Order: sequence, then C-alpha cells, then structure tokens
Amino acid sequence: MAEKPSRGLADVVAASTALSDIDGRAGRLSYRGYDIHQLAGSESGTATFEEIAYLLQRGSPPSRDELAGYREELTAGRPTGALAAASLPAVARAQGPMAALRSLVSLAAADDPDAGSNEPGPNRRKAARLTAQQPILIAAFEAARTGRPAPAADPALGLAANFLRQVTGRTPGARAAEIFDTCLVLHADHTMNASTFAARVCAATLADMHSAVVAALGTLSGPLHGGANEQVMRGLETIRANAAGDPADAVSDQVTQRLRRGEKIMGFGHRVYKTEDPRATHLRRMSEELARDGDDTYYRMSRRMEDVVLAEKGLYPNVDFYAATVYHYLGIPTDLFTPVFSASRMAGWTAHIIEQHADNRLIRPDSEYVGESGRTWIPLGAR
Amino acid sequence: MAEKPSRGLADVVAASTALSDIDGRAGRLSYRGYDIHQLAGSESGTATFEEIAYLLQRGSPPSRDELAGYREELTAGRPTGALAAASLPAVARAQGPMAALRSLVSLAAADDPDAGSNEPGPNRRKAARLTAQQPILIAAFEAARTGRPAPAADPALGLAANFLRQVTGRTPGARAAEIFDTCLVLHADHTMNASTFAARVCAATLADMHSAVVAALGTLSGPLHGGANEQVMRGLETIRANAAGDPADAVSDQVTQRLRRGEKIMGFGHRVYKTEDPRATHLRRMSEELARDGDDTYYRMSRRMEDVVLAEKGLYPNVDFYAATVYHYLGIPTDLFTPVFSASRMAGWTAHIIEQHADNRLIRPDSEYVGESGRTWIPLGAR
Repeated sequence: MAEKPSRGLADVVAASTALSDIDGRAGRLSYRGYDIHQLAGSESGTATFEEIAYLLQRGSPPSRDELAGYREELTAGRPTGALAAASLPAVARAQGPMAALRSLVSLAAADDPDAGSNEPGPNRRKAARLTAQQPILIAAFEAARTGRPAPAADPALGLAANFLRQVTGRTPGARAAEIFDTCLVLHADHTMNASTFAARVCAATLADMHSAVVAALGTLSGPLHGGANEQVMRGLETIRANAAGDPADAVSDQVTQRLRRGEKIMGFGHRVYKTEDPRATHLRRMSEELARDGDDTYYRMSRRMEDVVLAEKGLYPNVDFYAATVYHYLGIPTDLFTPVFSASRMAGWTAHIIEQHADNRLIRPDSEYVGESGRTWIPLGAR
Repeated sequence: MAEKPSRGLADVVAASTALSDIDGRAGRLSYRGYDIHQLAGSESGTATFEEIAYLLQRGSPPSRDELAGYREELTAGRPTGALAAASLPAVARAQGPMAALRSLVSLAAADDPDAGSNEPGPNRRKAARLTAQQPILIAAFEAARTGRPAPAADPALGLAANFLRQVTGRTPGARAAEIFDTCLVLHADHTMNASTFAARVCAATLADMHSAVVAALGTLSGPLHGGANEQVMRGLETIRANAAGDPADAVSDQVTQRLRRGEKIMGFGHRVYKTEDPRATHLRRMSEELARDGDDTYYRMSRRMEDVVLAEKGLYPNVDFYAATVYHYLGIPTDLFTPVFSASRMAGWTAHIIEQHADNRLIRPDSEYVGESGRTWIPLGAR
C-alpha cells in the first residue's frame, strides 16, 4: 500500500548495488568492498583512475594484461564520431559547459558502434568509450571557446595527465598528474546520488546507456548537485579580491557574519556523512601539497573557513570544498570543475547503468494527489 | 531508517502533485480534478490540447482571453532557435527519432530567452515554448529525413491540425484534426510515470527545464515506457502480411499460441490500472470511427486481439493499444508514434517541472549495498 510521501525519498531504498557503499556515521566510503583510503592513499601502489573505472564497470581489479587491454580500449574509444565533432564549434559558442556536454554526449550516441544494444558486452564497450570521451569533449569544448587548439593526446600518458595537458596546454608534472588522477578516483562513484539515480530511472525503461548518461549530465548540472566546487572557488576569489589585510582574516569575519545571518556556506555538510567526508581528507592533503609550491593564500583561506564553519555550525567540509582549490592549483578553469566531476563520475554512472540493465525492473513510484477533486469542466464557450 | 528495497519503487510515494490522479481499481484518470471522460468526450464542448496544456502548466482552465493569449504564445514560441535549426539536417541523418529529439531539445536550450532561470514566470514561458516546439521538431525531423519539405504552419489551425499538416503534407479534415487533438489530450499527463519521474529527479537538483525534459525524452525512449504503440502496429502489420485468410482469424490463432507459450503481448496490462484504462475507451472509439471511412482490417484485428487477450489472460488494452491504429489511420509514420506521445506529454512534463521547482527538495534515495566488504587492494605490481 502506498504510504505518506518521503520528501526527496530520504531513507527510501531505491535499488540494490554492488558498486559502492557509504557509512555516513563512520565516514567510510568503499568501491566494490575496497575502502577509499586504500585506493586514494598518497603512497605508491595506490590505484589509478583507469583501474577504478575497470573495477566499477567490469567487477574486479584488472590484472596487468587486462589493464593494458582496457587502456588500449580507452585510447581507441576517444574519437567522439562525426556528428559530435561537426557540432562542437557551434555548440561551444552557444552553450555553457554542462549544457554543451549534455548536447555533445547526446550527439555522440549517433556514432557509437554499439548503439542499439543494452547487452553486457556492448554496454561494457560503451562504458569504456564514454569514459574515454568525456575528458576529450571537455578539452575540445575549452579549445573551441578559447580558440586555442588543444595539444594532441599523448599515448604515453594516462587519462588524468592527458586531460591536464589538453586543457592547460602543457604536459603536467608527474606529481600534478598523480594528484589529479587521485581526484578522479575519489569522485568515481557515490551510491545513489541524484545524477546516478536519474541514470538508473532512465536505464530502467531499457533506454540505452547514452540516454541515461545524458539524463545524469542534466541532473548534475543543477546547483544542488554539481556546481558547489565552482561556487567555493568563486567565494574564495571574491573574499580575496575585497580583503583589506590578510584574506584568511577576511574569511573569518565574513563567514562568521554570513553564518550568523543564517546563510549557507557552499562546500560544507552532506545528507549522508555526519562526520568528515573521507574524500575531503585526501583533497585537503593534496590542496596543501599543491599550495606549498606556489601561492598558498587560497589554501590558508580554506583552512580558516573550515575552522570557522566547524566551530559555528559543527559542519565538516564535503567533497566539493577542497576539490575547488586542488583544481584551481592544477590550472583548471573554474567553470570546468563540474565537467571534471562528470569525467570521473562517468565511471560510476556507466557501471550503475550496466548493473541496472543486468537485473532490471521499471522504476515507477507512486505520487500522492494533493489537488482538487470532482470538478466539472465548463466548455470554453460558457467560460 | 532505511528499509528493504522496494524494487522499482512500486507503492512508494515519491512526490506530491496537484496535476493528475489515477484510481487504478476504478479505472479513473483526472487532470487537476477534471475527469478525463469530461475532457476527451466526443461531443462538442470538450477540451482542446491547448486548454489542457494551459490547465496543467498554469493551474486552471483558461478564459477565452487567456486561451487566445496562450495560443499566441505558442505560435510565437515555435522557432527552435539557430543552434537546433542548423543542427537538424545532420541530426536527422544520423539519429533515430527519439535520439534526435533528445539532441535537438538539448540544443534548443541554447536559444531560449529564459534559459538560466527556474522562476515561475520564466518556467511558464519555457513550458509554452517547449510545448509549441516539440511537434515542430518532429515534423522538421520527418521533412529532413524524407527530403520532402514540411508545409508552413497555418496560423488558422491549432497545434494538432498543424502537426498533421506538417507531417503528412496535407491539411487534415476537421474530424481527423479533432480526433488527433483528443489523442494529445489523453496523453498529456499520467502521474509519476518513469519519464515524468526522471524529469522531477533532474529538476530537483535545480537543473533547468530543458535538462529535465531531455532526461524525460531519454527515459521515454526505452521500450518499457515508450515504443509499445509502435510495437503494436508492427505486430498487426506482420500478422496481416502473413495471413492466409482473414487477418482477424490469424490474430486469434497467433495471439492464442503466443500467450500459451508465455509471451507478452504489447499494449495490454498496466502497473496501475486493474480494469480498462479510461484512455483506451476513447482510443477504441476513435479507431473504430476512422476505420469506417477506409480499410477497417487493422481495427477488426485489434478488436479480435483484445477479445483473445481478455479471455486468455484477463488483461485489458492500455493506452498504447488503440493509439497505434488511430495514429496509423491518421497517416503518421509508425516510428513517430513515440515522438507524438512526447509532443503531448511535454505538457505534463513541463507542468511537473514547474511544480517541482516551486516546492523543491533534492530527490536522493538510499541504496542497499549487496557487494563484497572489507577487501584488501593489491597494488598492480603485485597482481
């Protein structure tokens, strides 16, 4: 029987998944049973984004041969096809980054050789292509709108290093590439967030993977889901630009005032985590490391903001908060932060679509009717 | 607390709505409290699609002046903008109808003057434009792929008549236009179906109306949601093509055999309705009326199929079953049946997005983790 509505479906279990798990009280996140702290550690031997995409999409960590094969598949899967390529200049002129990606992925579906099948094999191949193409589309979008052609991808580099190379115009140092790779690992999946859920609702009608990814991209474009990392950076920039003395002191004053006025500070708190988001731990560490080599102002401002929000509100930074300064230090334009998130989350979205198609049932909830009843329609002539 | 998952969210109330209501046991459907039988009756004085779109999007039946203003808004809103127009020929060559519409609506967002706002005024205007543009895009798609230019829209005609004129190449008779208009009224909204739910999940991140409609279009493209009307028509065509004697007798034999083999017959049964879908009542009547003026074979075959499926399985025809022959008799190409559904449902989708934005909460359900736990990551070098 239908019950009273759960606004926002909070605490309603909508699907089973073997992809990721969160313990919000303990602040734990795992991918297929591997704790995120094992995968994103700073020591050598931790995982690359390609290994995590393989793990999520194909079920277990790749052997060395399997990883080599998957890397070849990613490289071969980069070309987005004639329709998306031909449309790119006009789309980049007319649409912002997330709307452009929504359009371009929809167009790229036309040239995918596995379009039209939701079977496991075709779905696995499409997942690899979508994962390979997303950073390429972002870099091509940036090149088109700036008029500065992106350097060709370097076959010797992984997905993370190639993305930085294509977006910033220069090959990143080894450590910068490693840090960005860890960012992609940290954002790859996160249970039933809104964009992943939208992808599963779409896939559950047996719509194809591209339709479901397009639904996810549109859902991520909303400011309650994506965009917080961009807002964090813009907030830091504004405070710094207007600070009379040390911008870190200006942070203390302004954030305290804003909190006391009841305003929300972007990048803090999470519906699931009641303690520190385990991803934030790694992003803070990487922001600190990158700040050491240059201007550490934004990092110091962020630390101060974290202290103030914790003291005033008891809220911890979420995944978006330190991602902002990490991406900034890596030279990524601020309005590409959410697209970068999508390049990572593509691994999770596609894995969830594979999982949905493999054991499908239509997702069709009920609604509660709260409108008028029993009205009599008066024909137009008598109105 | 999280409970055991409800597969497919069946019987879970996901949202409140004042737009439409279903009583599945009684076989009743109403829009804002007006029973569908009042709105779709055959007698004069029943509602037009434009009145229903207004009712859903703006809350109450329009006065004569309000309807005149809304019609002007629809006419002015038809041009889909430079980006979608320029992309149309290449998209129509490369993508099937539903994928093309997904791409074109995503592209059309670029030129909407109210892009970037989810406020009630801009949302109402975008809803009118999207409603006006969807039939135009379908007709333009048909024109591009056939190479037969669509006649210009006739300002003296309503949305239904203009669509038939543009898709078939000739102005429909008054009764054909009226019947198609009633089809659009019947399909305009239907509570929390999968595409509408996808639109609300997307809109609930405060993503914009175009993103949410694009998510809905992708979701409708799946064969468990859209497409049944097309499959019904193809099934009838196949049986007729292979029938030795009267195709209606061939229906009896084949459908009986298929049901006894446990196969599903498209166009029958519904997760919500346990008796006849009230929309099917009207579509059967209209199919019969259209059959009278020409070849009634498909109508007779449909009646026979209905009798067999009810006798063998106790299942009633759903909205898709008689829509197939109605659209066929009206001269609509079979692979445009689902796009036609989208042109009608656009009224409901946009109204649900307005409703979601007006009283929003992020829709983020839980998932149940069913994978392995506590695994130890073995670095690649040791694998």
